[in-house]
Amino acid sequence: MRVLVPFAAETPKTRLESVLSPAERVAFARAMLADVLRAIVETGHEPTILATAPLELAAPGLELPDDVATAVSVSVDERPLTDAVNARLPDGDATTADAVAVVMADLALATPDALERLLTGTADVAIAPGRAGGTNALVVRDPAFTVDYHGASYLDHCAIAREVGATIETIDSFRLGTDIDEPEDLVEVLVHGRETDRALAYLRKVGFELDDRDGRVGVRRDEQSMTETR
Amino acid sequence: MRVLVPFAAETPKTRLESVLSPAERVAFARAMLADVLRAIVETGHEPTILATAPLELAAPGLELPDDVATAVSVSVDERPLTDAVNARLPDGDATTADAVAVVMADLALATPDALERLLTGTADVAIAPGRAGGTNALVVRDPAFTVDYHGASYLDHCAIAREVGATIETIDSFRLGTDIDEPEDLVEVLVHGRETDRALAYLRKVGFELDDRDGRVGVRRDEQSMTETR
Repeated sequence: MRVLVPFAAETPKTRLESVLSPAERVAFARAMLADVLRAIVETGHEPTILATAPLELAAPGLELPDDVATAVSVSVDERPLTDAVNARLPDGDATTADAVAVVMADLALATPDALERLLTGTADVAIAPGRAGGTNALVVRDPAFTVDYHGASYLDHCAIAREVGATIETIDSFRLGTDIDEPEDLVEVLVHGRETDRALAYLRKVGFELDDRDGRVGVRRDEQSMTETR
Repeated sequence: MRVLVPFAAETPKTRLESVLSPAERVAFARAMLADVLRAIVETGHEPTILATAPLELAAPGLELPDDVATAVSVSVDERPLTDAVNARLPDGDATTADAVAVVMADLALATPDALERLLTGTADVAIAPGRAGGTNALVVRDPAFTVDYHGASYLDHCAIAREVGATIETIDSFRLGTDIDEPEDLVEVLVHGRETDRALAYLRKVGFELDDRDGRVGVRRDEQSMTETR
């Protein structure tokens, strides 16, 4: 199975602009990408970064360790996500070897266990939905299926699968369902990140910690750390 | 196993006040409760509503069908959630019969399949986390364990389990991880609700529908429906 990891290489994570500087957003996005790639490699697959611009595996903040880097390749495609993914979906006889998985680069909570549940099914289309109707990860085993990432893509992908007669499996995973887009999502990294996760380490390094002083759980940032890293 | 469903019977779902009137919030909360109870009954368990005030199973908006109502009982406890739950946790020899599950009443996406994953484990403590460090559902099989629902309760519950030497299992479920608290959460009911779900039917009845006109998926409410139901 081919596993694609789409990555906005140039101006990632703009919706975090209220809490992270542009340089910090690049570093944090790369840390999440590194975590996602490592989790995929640990499932025994060799992921391809589908990048919007050229990207070195040794780039600052990405700096993949050798055991991960040897399993990872980069494919550059400047087109919108939907077009870039559709150009790489199965076009053959839908053998297992021809199946394609698409795993978003901001699934900072993805673990090998959660990914195994996605990657080992037999349905023609397997989808791990995200919040607000998004498609955080999917597997395509039917060459008639195409993606459309605009809007409530989970519902659109279910509809497209039905149209082409493809069987659908929905993967019920909190970890795969959590994409890190907004400042409030950083809570999830601080709560569920594993000690070996680069994204968790990065947030701690730049001064984020959990904050439940007002009775609800959010994040706060240490001003000193902010000054040092900006 | 005893299955408790805590329910704020009097002023439920206050964080939905910007989109639902007080009467509507009561009706919607009861519809979600009815869905959760039905899903639990479909797993073969007989849930107890742990209510903050007396509640009739035939109350308007709840109106449990006979096959569900016969399996459901009500226990009234006016104390805060943590105290009411702790009073009902295992106090015996932690046999299977003595285990206690606690499933929140606003898990509108809960399905029998997702609940089975929670209820059929063997760990001393099984937790389905929600967003922002919450504990949406848990199973307690160790009489030394106690709950504390304040703050980032998922982390607290993991810490309490470690302190008493209890084994922990985290249930990785998008459906159990989605509690319906805020207006933006209504999207999840509209996207993932099943056609037989009362909560989905209620939202449609009062005029809610998905709205992706601004490029992101939210909900909008038909003004005509709002006038009719307020």
